[in-house]
Formats: sequence, structure tokens, C-alpha cells
Amino acid sequence: MPAKRSPARRPTMKDIAQRAGVSESAVSFALNDRPGVSEITRDRVRRVAEQLGWRPSTAARQLSGEGAATVGLVLARPADTLGVDSFFLQLISGIQEVLAERHLGLLFQVVEDVDDECAVYRRWWAEHRVDGVLVVDPRTDDARPDLLDELGLPAVVIGGAPDARHPGLSTVWADDAGAMAAVVDELSALGHRRIVHIAGLPGLAHTERRIRTLRAEADQRGLAEVRSVTTDYSDAEGAAVTRRVLQGGVLEGEVLAGGIVEGGVGEGGSRPTALIYDNDVMAVAGVAAATELGFSVPGDVSVVAWEDSALCRMVKPWLSALSRDTVEFGRTAAKELTSLLDGGPARAVRVPVPRLISRESTGPCGA
Amino acid sequence: MPAKRSPARRPTMKDIAQRAGVSESAVSFALNDRPGVSEITRDRVRRVAEQLGWRPSTAARQLSGEGAATVGLVLARPADTLGVDSFFLQLISGIQEVLAERHLGLLFQVVEDVDDECAVYRRWWAEHRVDGVLVVDPRTDDARPDLLDELGLPAVVIGGAPDARHPGLSTVWADDAGAMAAVVDELSALGHRRIVHIAGLPGLAHTERRIRTLRAEADQRGLAEVRSVTTDYSDAEGAAVTRRVLQGGVLEGEVLAGGIVEGGVGEGGSRPTALIYDNDVMAVAGVAAATELGFSVPGDVSVVAWEDSALCRMVKPWLSALSRDTVEFGRTAAKELTSLLDGGPARAVRVPVPRLISRESTGPCGA
Repeated sequence: MPAKRSPARRPTMKDIAQRAGVSESAVSFALNDRPGVSEITRDRVRRVAEQLGWRPSTAARQLSGEGAATVGLVLARPADTLGVDSFFLQLISGIQEVLAERHLGLLFQVVEDVDDECAVYRRWWAEHRVDGVLVVDPRTDDARPDLLDELGLPAVVIGGAPDARHPGLSTVWADDAGAMAAVVDELSALGHRRIVHIAGLPGLAHTERRIRTLRAEADQRGLAEVRSVTTDYSDAEGAAVTRRVLQGGVLEGEVLAGGIVEGGVGEGGSRPTALIYDNDVMAVAGVAAATELGFSVPGDVSVVAWEDSALCRMVKPWLSALSRDTVEFGRTAAKELTSLLDGGPARAVRVPVPRLISRESTGPCGA
Repeated sequence: MPAKRSPARRPTMKDIAQRAGVSESAVSFALNDRPGVSEITRDRVRRVAEQLGWRPSTAARQLSGEGAATVGLVLARPADTLGVDSFFLQLISGIQEVLAERHLGLLFQVVEDVDDECAVYRRWWAEHRVDGVLVVDPRTDDARPDLLDELGLPAVVIGGAPDARHPGLSTVWADDAGAMAAVVDELSALGHRRIVHIAGLPGLAHTERRIRTLRAEADQRGLAEVRSVTTDYSDAEGAAVTRRVLQGGVLEGEVLAGGIVEGGVGEGGSRPTALIYDNDVMAVAGVAAATELGFSVPGDVSVVAWEDSALCRMVKPWLSALSRDTVEFGRTAAKELTSLLDGGPARAVRVPVPRLISRESTGPCGA
């Protein structure tokens, strides 16, 4: 049997009218900012409404054209890869700060893939559930911008470079190319010429940008043995790829700076002396795997993690990492969305380039 | 200047009427399940509505008493402690799975403290924004159950033991006491008699349950040197407390199994040989701190982490940890809430006791 509760009653316009000693229509005029009541009455009504904790219901606001007062965020990732991901919680924290100031809610949904994500946008739109959306994990081949254009749903793409085909979408992004160039600068200054980049999910726009930049930087410096290998971002794949490249195994599906290598990678000589990981979790798992195989970090192999987090200072050696203010990144994205909701223009905003923090996991080649 | 977009138009009842070749009022009768149209017309109208992707707007659903089709979750934690927290993302994944099946949205908000959380509940309730809420981090002295009772907002408390004063609230919880007893069993079987429990936030109900159980288990076994120290769950405090207890320093604010110790902890003899951490992040940071001080794990000190995650298998030695299915925990909580929304009774549901997985970080005392 359900336990009985006598819920508090929400204050109504009638309650306000009684307390303020005016008619209900005077209350309605005052709260809806319409003519028909004096300044003094308007002020009294508003004061009483505030005292009683009165608020227009979401339904009333929507019908009066004020929108859902909610923005949406869909995360298309299998649930079990969400395990240790500091990036998203920090991003959401920053988003929340800005939304809270504006009394906007964040409607959040986790789905399996981009098709499901598109279905959610269609449903939210049809049901007037959100006023706009924040789009994460932009892809090189992405159905979402077209859909959002079609629906006319205000949207900010987080992490995507601006796309001239979708001038109505705002973008907030970091210059991954600049950050990757800084890492190659640092590693080549330390004498490293054989570098493996253990990248994230193929098909994500920023994964492709990083791979392209690494290739260009390597070509420019005449580094022939620089390659990228894509993964699912998990600690398991980070460790597995680390073991394979350190043991000199053939890598399937790898992208090489100097073109695809047909044969295997020879023993010894071609073993990489530096590894770049696309997140903190893979870097930590990779260092553990390397250590287990008897390689010392940074003595035998230097390690750089892309996403700095507390994790990078929780292991020994402390990991050199690319650092950025992810909470601020979230704030910036939310501000762009509220600006769109206020009728502002779509814009491309570039946040500061992630900064390389050299800690204990990088050192001279062959030290 | 805002970029121009010509948004798609949401299908209306008029569109359905035209396509189905019936009157608008027939469409309204059919979709609202009211008499006045034949079975055949009703079926045709529904088929056409489905083809056109028609959905009642949230506003219309609310005014017809169907609710907001949204449930709320507020997380009262400072943004910067959200860094590496696998628990919440996994919990939310499980919650989402169940909500998605029911087409319920999750309105998510991060706030600084419980006062702000209460303010959010009042606002959501006043604005009819959510049909119910999921409450996390229950506290020993908690204003939320009274407020939720007062508002009559359906709620499921996640992680709290059932409270007879609030029969209208559902609870979904794990038996932390049973899990803590299993850890003490294991450690005392390995010969450990001096144990420090590096606990989470004071004031949280499950922190207090764990501390109480540890004290009772130690008393029962005649272990005098067993104590708990509360922290903010961060890697920094996990490392700091580890350093202090291994160096034999005085601990302020600690809770002792045999009562509060007045003086300092002596050198050498009273150094703990086993450490229990209330989460994975502190355990990893603690192992790094211990190693840096020259203590080997588990040779000099055994380590158990409360919350198993990928992190526990990313470091060497692999951490022994209490494991539970957090995604399933989230699913169970969401199912209890949908059951409340369907008019079901408030219930207390106990999920399986976390299971101790012994890996490499626990060993015989003095080995």
C-alpha cells in the first residue's frame, strides 16, 4: 500500500490575489507584465508572489512561448566505456554553472550510438522538451548538423572545428593541431624519432585532426617512424596496443606518418621511444603494461597523456600531460548556447590551446 | 547576424486530419482516447500520426495531467571533486537505460551543497518540472526527506538505509556493514591487527555505517588499533592521510575503534599494516604515496579499495577491491522511481552486498 503523504499545495494566482488584497485579473496583469494595473499594485503583487514562492509552471511558460527553459545533452557512448572519464563530468560541471544562473535545466541522456542520438533530438524537438542542445563528440561523417539545421534547434557543437556548411550552428573548440605540434616539438627536442600515437575512437573529428597533424609534423621533421593507432579509449586497448608496439608486433589498421607500412615492424631498432596517448586512462594503463614488460618510463620509453587529470599525478612516474580547463570549456559552451537562445548570432569560439606540462614520464631518448 | 535557418514544422493535429481525411475534432478524439469516433477512424488517425512523427508537446501533456515525463537528479558536490568519479557516471548510465525505455528524461543539476539542492527541489516542484526525483548521498542529518515529504514529490533515496520516519520515500541501498565485515574478516585472516580506514566525507550515511561497522567488528575481534579517518574523497587527501599514518603522525578528527586516542600514535610499532580506502581514487593515490615513502605494497602494507573500477587494474600492484554492479544499482533505483510514478508503493530494496575481489595489494601481515 502506498504510504500516505499530504503534499504541499503550489501557490496559485488566487493565493496571491487574496494575500495582496487585489483581484485575480490584477495579479495576472501584474505577473505577465501587461497594462491595466498601477505601478504600486504591480510591485505589491510581485512582492507577495515572491514571498509565496510562486512560479509559472513549465507548461504555462511553454504555452506563452517562453520555451522549455531546458537544454539537452546526449552522450552516445556505450555505458561501460563511461567508467573512468573525468572529461565529461568536468564539462557538465562547467555547463551547469552557467545554466543554473539562468535557471535553465539540463536534460541529459546516454544512448548507444549517433542514430539513437538523432532519434532523441527528433523526439525532444517534437515534444518541445528543450530549447537547444549541446552536441559532443563531433565526427568526420556526422548526420547531426544536418538534422539540427532541419529541425531549427539551436545548437552548440563542442570540440568541432567550424563547418561552413552549417552557419547556424555555434562551435566551441580547442586547437588540437597546435597542441599536437607542441608535443612533437618537445619529444623531438629530447631526441625522439620513433613515436607511436595511441589515438582515440576513429571517426571522431578531433581524433582525425590529431592524426593528420602528427603526420604533417613528422613529415616536416623527416621523422619516418611515426604512426597513429586508433582505439576505443579504454584502459584495456591502451595497454594492449602498448604491449604490441613495445614488442615490435605488426599493427593492423594503423595510420603511418610516412604512409601505410606493408610489412611488420622489425624487432629492436624500430621500437618506439615515445608514446602519445589520447587520454589519461590509456596512458596510465600503458605505463603499467610497459613496466610489466620490463621497460622503464622514461628511461626506455617516454609517455605523454593527452588529457591531464588527477590520475596523471596518482601514478609513479607522474605523467607529462596536455592540460586544459575543461570546466571552463563547459562554461564557454553553455554561454554560447544561452546567447543563441537570446537570439544572438551563431559563432565559432576557440578556447585556449591545451598546454603541455612536463612531469616525470618524459626524458631524453636513450637516457 | 544570426544565420538564417528554416526549421522543419512540427506536425499538428491539422496535418493529421488532412492526411487521414477526417475532421480535426475526430483526430483530437482519437488521439486523446475519447469516444466519438469509430474504431476504424481511430486506427487510421493513429497510424497517420505515427507516420508523421506527431507527439503531444510536453506542455499539452502537463496540462492534461500527464506530468512532465521527466525525473530529476541533483548532485551536491563541489565541481572540482567530480574529477575522477566513475561511480556517478555508471549510476547515471543505469538510470538512463530504464528511463529511456519509458521515454522519461533525466533533468540533471550539479549544486554546491544540500541547501542549494533543497532549493532546486522546491523550484522544480513549483514549476512542475519533474514527476519525481532520485536522491543521492544520503546524510545522517538530512533535510531532504522532510522537504520531499512536504512537497509530496515521489522520490527514491539511493544508498540510504530505510528510514521509518519517511515511509513515503523508496530506498535502494547496499549493505555496507556486510561488506566492511568481509574486509575485516579477510584482513584479520591474513594476520593484520593494525588497520586504518581512510573514509569518505563525514556526515554521509554510508560513511557513518562503514565506520560504525568497522568499530564493531574490531571490538568483537579484540583489535585495539583500528581507526577511521574521514576525508573529502580526493586523491590529495587520500595521499596525505596515507603519508601521515605510515609516518606515525597524530591524526586529528579521527574516529577510533576503541574510542578516541588522546595522545599521538607512537613510531614503528603502531604503524598500520593494512589500509582500507573508501574509494578507488584515494587507494591509487595512497599506494603511490606509500611507495614514494619506501613502503612496499603488500609487503609492508596491504591495501583494499572500496569501489572497484578499471583504475584498480591500471596500477601495479593490482588493487584488491570491493566490487558491485553500479550500472545495475542505477537501473534498480530508476525502476523503483517509475514504479512510484505508476502509483506503486514506496519500498526499501536491498541490492547485493559488494563482493571483495582479492588481487595483488593484499597479503599476509609481515610477509
